[in-house]
Order: sequence, then C-alpha cells, then structure tokens
Amino acid sequence: MEKINTLEKLNNMGKDMVGQIKKGHSPYFTTPLRSRGNIKFDKEEGVLKLGKKDEKRTFANVGQARKFMQTMAIAAKCKKFVEEELHTSIRGLYYQLKFSLGENLEEDLFSEQSESNPLIEDLEVALDVKREDFNLSTDRKGFVAGDMLIEDTFGGEKTVIDCGKQGRSGWSIPSDVDNGMKIKELNADYVLVVEKDAMWQRLNEDKYWKKQNCLLITPKGQASRGTRRLLRKLADKKLPIYVFTDCDAWGWYIYWAIKTGSMNLAYLGTEIAVPEARFIGVTMKDISDFDFLSKLTIKAKPVDIKRASEMIDYPWINRHKEWVNELKTVLRTKQKLEQDALQGPRLTFVGEYLAKKIANNDFLP
Amino acid sequence: MEKINTLEKLNNMGKDMVGQIKKGHSPYFTTPLRSRGNIKFDKEEGVLKLGKKDEKRTFANVGQARKFMQTMAIAAKCKKFVEEELHTSIRGLYYQLKFSLGENLEEDLFSEQSESNPLIEDLEVALDVKREDFNLSTDRKGFVAGDMLIEDTFGGEKTVIDCGKQGRSGWSIPSDVDNGMKIKELNADYVLVVEKDAMWQRLNEDKYWKKQNCLLITPKGQASRGTRRLLRKLADKKLPIYVFTDCDAWGWYIYWAIKTGSMNLAYLGTEIAVPEARFIGVTMKDISDFDFLSKLTIKAKPVDIKRASEMIDYPWINRHKEWVNELKTVLRTKQKLEQDALQGPRLTFVGEYLAKKIANNDFLP
Repeated sequence: MEKINTLEKLNNMGKDMVGQIKKGHSPYFTTPLRSRGNIKFDKEEGVLKLGKKDEKRTFANVGQARKFMQTMAIAAKCKKFVEEELHTSIRGLYYQLKFSLGENLEEDLFSEQSESNPLIEDLEVALDVKREDFNLSTDRKGFVAGDMLIEDTFGGEKTVIDCGKQGRSGWSIPSDVDNGMKIKELNADYVLVVEKDAMWQRLNEDKYWKKQNCLLITPKGQASRGTRRLLRKLADKKLPIYVFTDCDAWGWYIYWAIKTGSMNLAYLGTEIAVPEARFIGVTMKDISDFDFLSKLTIKAKPVDIKRASEMIDYPWINRHKEWVNELKTVLRTKQKLEQDALQGPRLTFVGEYLAKKIANNDFLP
Repeated sequence: MEKINTLEKLNNMGKDMVGQIKKGHSPYFTTPLRSRGNIKFDKEEGVLKLGKKDEKRTFANVGQARKFMQTMAIAAKCKKFVEEELHTSIRGLYYQLKFSLGENLEEDLFSEQSESNPLIEDLEVALDVKREDFNLSTDRKGFVAGDMLIEDTFGGEKTVIDCGKQGRSGWSIPSDVDNGMKIKELNADYVLVVEKDAMWQRLNEDKYWKKQNCLLITPKGQASRGTRRLLRKLADKKLPIYVFTDCDAWGWYIYWAIKTGSMNLAYLGTEIAVPEARFIGVTMKDISDFDFLSKLTIKAKPVDIKRASEMIDYPWINRHKEWVNELKTVLRTKQKLEQDALQGPRLTFVGEYLAKKIANNDFLP
C-alpha cells in the first residue's frame, strides 16, 4: 500500500464526515463485520476471508457515539504519523490520544488500551488499509538466512542488508516488510519455514540454506504479521513454501495460520495467507519411514487431542484426506512428535531428513 | 571461556570418576549449593553470588544414583558437541540422551526435559563453565543498533556485521557472545538499554544512536543470558550502561537483574552482572520535572505494590536512599508510569528526554 493512497483514504474519510455533518446528518462510516459469523473459507483461493456483511458506525447513537469519536481521533493521529513519516506502536498511539484528549474531555476516552485495538481494526477494514500503512508497528518476530538482499529505507536512510552475511544471528524480520522495503535480489529454489528458533540455528550452523540454495526462515513459533507478509511476497515470486513444525496442536496451528490465514486476521484475507504452503513434517507417517522415531514420541497432551478432533471438522482441512489420516493417527495412538526428535541419532540428521523429503516431494497439502 | 579449557575440564571430570572407581570408591563430584540459602549479595562487587556451601553428588546413594548417572550422560554428550563443533538446544540434548540411553536402560532416564535443566546447572557450577561453552544454546533475545563491528565465526565461516547498517531491524544478539565472537570495532560514548522493542524501534527511527554516539540496545523485556553477557563485555570496555524501563514491577526487575544479577542465575555471579549500570527512568521523580506526565500515570497493579514493598527490604536496594524514595512514592501514590508515556506530547519527545537526563547525569544508582 502506498503512503499517498493511505493519506488519500484517510482524507476522504474525513471529508465524507464533514460533508455529512454539513448536510445536517449524523456522520457515519461502514465497515465489514469481523465476527465469526462473517468469516468464510474461500474454496477457490484457499483463504479465510470476511463475508459480505457490513456494520454501520454512527455518531448519533447513544451506544456508538463514544466509539465513533475514538475512531475519528485514531484516524486523525494516524494521518499525522503518516505525514510526519514517523512510526509508533499502538501503546504510543494510546498515550498520544490520552495526552491530547485527556484534558479537554470529561472522561478519559482511552482509559484502557484494549479499547483502541478493535477501533484500529475498524479503520483497517473500513479503508482497506493495513495498520502498518498507518505507521503503526506490530510485534516483530522471525529471522531469515539465505541469499537475499533487502533494501531498507528507514529514517531517511537506505541500507542494503545481505541475509547471507548475518552469521549466527540472521536478519530479523521487521513489523512492516512493505513500506520502504523491497527484495532487491533473491537467489533461492524454495523457502523452508522452521517453527523453532533453536532448530533454525541448528540448520543455519549446518549451512543448510547454502547447500540447498533455499531461504531459511523461522517465525519463532506463531508467525507475526510481518513474517506472514514476507512469506506471501516470496510465494508471489513463485518460490515453494515448505513448513516444518512439531506434530502437535501448536505446530499444526502455525502451519494452518500461514496457509489459510487465521480467524482473528481473516480481515486481511489474501494479503497475509499463503495457500501455496506445504507441510513437510514432522508427521506421524515419518515414524514408519524413520524407525528410530518410534521411541522418541511423547504422550500427546489433552490440548493436542482436542485440537486434532476439532481440525478434522474444519472443511478447509478435511478436504485433504492426507490430513484426515494424519490427525486420525494422532487420535488413535495419542502420541505427538517434536521436530527436535530428529536430532536424536546425530545433530546433523535433521538436515538430511529435510533434504530427503524435499527431493521426494513428500509433503502434506 | 576457551573451548580447550572446557574440554579439559570435562576430560578431567571423567578421569576423576574413573580414578575413583578404580580405587574401589563410589564416584562423586562436588558442586556449590544453588538454593536460596547459599545466595549472597557481595557488597564489594555489588553482585548476587553463591556462598561457600557445597553439595556432594555421589553414585552410591539410592537417592542420587539416577541423577548422578544422568549428569554423567549429559557431560559425555556435551563433550561430543564441543568436539564436533556443533551446537544444539537443551531440547536437542534431551533427544540425544533419549535416543542413546533409551534402549539400553530399563526406563527412560530423561522422560521429562525439566529433569535435565538442573543437571546442566550442576555441571556448569561444578566445572565453573557456562552452558554456552558446552555448545548448548539458550533462548536469544535482544537487538543492537550503533557504531560497532562484530566478528562472528560460525559454522566455519567468518562474517563481520556492522550494527550501524542494519536498517530498521538491528543486529539480533545471539545466545553466545563469547565463543567465536568478538567486538572488532566500537565507537560509542555510552550504552542505552531500552526495555521495549517498540520503543527501541522509535529511537532507532530517530537515529538516536547516531546523534548521541551511543549503542542502542533492547533486551525485549527481561534480558537474556546473551544480552547480559554482551552488556558485561561493554561495561568492561568502560562504557557507561544506562537502563531505561517502565516505572513498575517488571521494569525494576529488568534493571536489577542486569545490575546485580538474579537469584536463578546467581551461580554465574560476576560473569553476567553489571553493577556499573545506572537507571535513567522513567521515575516517579520525572513527574515533577515533566508536568504533562502527571496526567499520563496509570493505577499501579497489586503486583507493582507488592514488588515495591519487597524491594525496599532488599539490602542491595535499600542502601540507596534514592531508590527508597522512589519506591515509597509508588507505595504512597499507588501510581505507575510507562516509558511509552513520553511519546504523549510528540513521538520524538522520548529522545529529548533521554538526551537531557544523560547530559544532566540524572540517574538513580
């Protein structure tokens, strides 16, 4: 999203409001409903999205006046941040609002930050703009190693970062990988997404990315918005995206959130989902292919069992019979398997496992 | 700690055991007691340390045989990792042990990873070596921006990383900042440690480190072992270390853990503590110096009140009357203050605040 476009949208929203007021109407705007009932799985695209239901936010409504006013105050602050070309967190936004609204009003509008978060989402969906485009930073998490040059224009300076020359640390994926940031050069055959940072470090030490000519990425658990956007951009460049997690509730969640998007970010839809992603492992099926794993399984926790049975009911999962088989095995054996178990025979085994599965196209959909 | 030294220590431990067995004795080793009763505050050095109490771990003792055997198995694996020059996490270690001990023994020695952690600590203190020297990686966290070149030798390759050319991301502080890593060049007048990553990003965008010729570091909350070691190394280079956190239970904890070390890492003593550190803010005193802050305070939570009254009783804190005053103000007003509040009047205010306090040497001890 370009800054001009974001500013224009914010300006137009303001003009709309003024126009409505001048005509003697109560100002209002409409925003797609984000509740569960309006979240749909788009079969064609393979992505969780919002449906067609809208909500109207209006000033002249006792139940909505306060929130309406808050949303307009947020929009005004975001406009200022974009014009100033300065970024802050929603905590920083909260204090700016508290500072400027606090003394002119009878009560503190933003006594709790939790009030401002859904209002920012309102603005994001109403204007079809991401909060990153409002210069609001989100929690960053995740690292990259591989043959990729990133051009980062930040605080008025341009830097080129070589993700192949970051030693043991890797390049930290920022909150915003769109504005002022581009992939300048990229030389990789695929992207490997590794759930755990410690496993990423293990593979980085083995120079897995160099030997396999791939990009090695860890989301460090659940993928941040920035990491999901980066994966989307890499998939747009036609790189296959392989995801490597534990075989348990948390690992599956990480994979499916990357692939189809997640309920709470369904409003970002295709911007943040990577339906092209494939699941490389670890799987219950691996146990029959790699004998030693049978003694390295762990008893599944109640949350794993509960999650597995829920997942079998999701239409976007149970349309894949491979996943149904996988989840049924978990439910039957009540066992789970961690990616770390592949270090059992020798520390370097995990790279051999991955290279073999990739060579054999041995993935779950 | 050099690798040779670590290997030598592991070898000597093994030889000791064999010697004892050959003499017909039950093998044993001694290790300093790590329980609360043996943690002392060293007034001279200003650091939490272990006292003189030792414990004996012996094989011929029904209550200790199992743990003794586990510890020896861990020592053997760590020796292998160091010789192979490969790193792993304690989760990787756990699976290596499960793999090699699992089939020869009646029961799984390491059915739970929680069993192995205290045993690794036993080895660390018994041999006076850090787990990082055993090639065991710990959770990494924290970022640096500033004029510093890091030489990182990793996986057989040497890379030089310029912490001043990392754009919006910064250099990610790794688990181990000692082995295969050195500070090649450093040009800074002081180190600023900023509790929150979002605030670090704010200051990085303002190029605070360039304007002030300092190193800008965020531990991202509680400082990791790697971040504390890096701060120790920077303090050894005679750079002043200023810590900037929230004025609340969590912020104070972050500061005091950096300064004196923490209870659970007291066994690392001076290796990981930075008694030279000073607290820059935010403080209750700031409210009288910066008027607008009085309307940006928040009601303290019960945990903040509880922590403040506990801290007043710690001898290493209440010997500083400035801290006693600060904590008494919190207890009296029942208010807290976040570092983000400094963004209230304008986003760039936080840098002005910091520069002013540093110019005036306005710190808590």
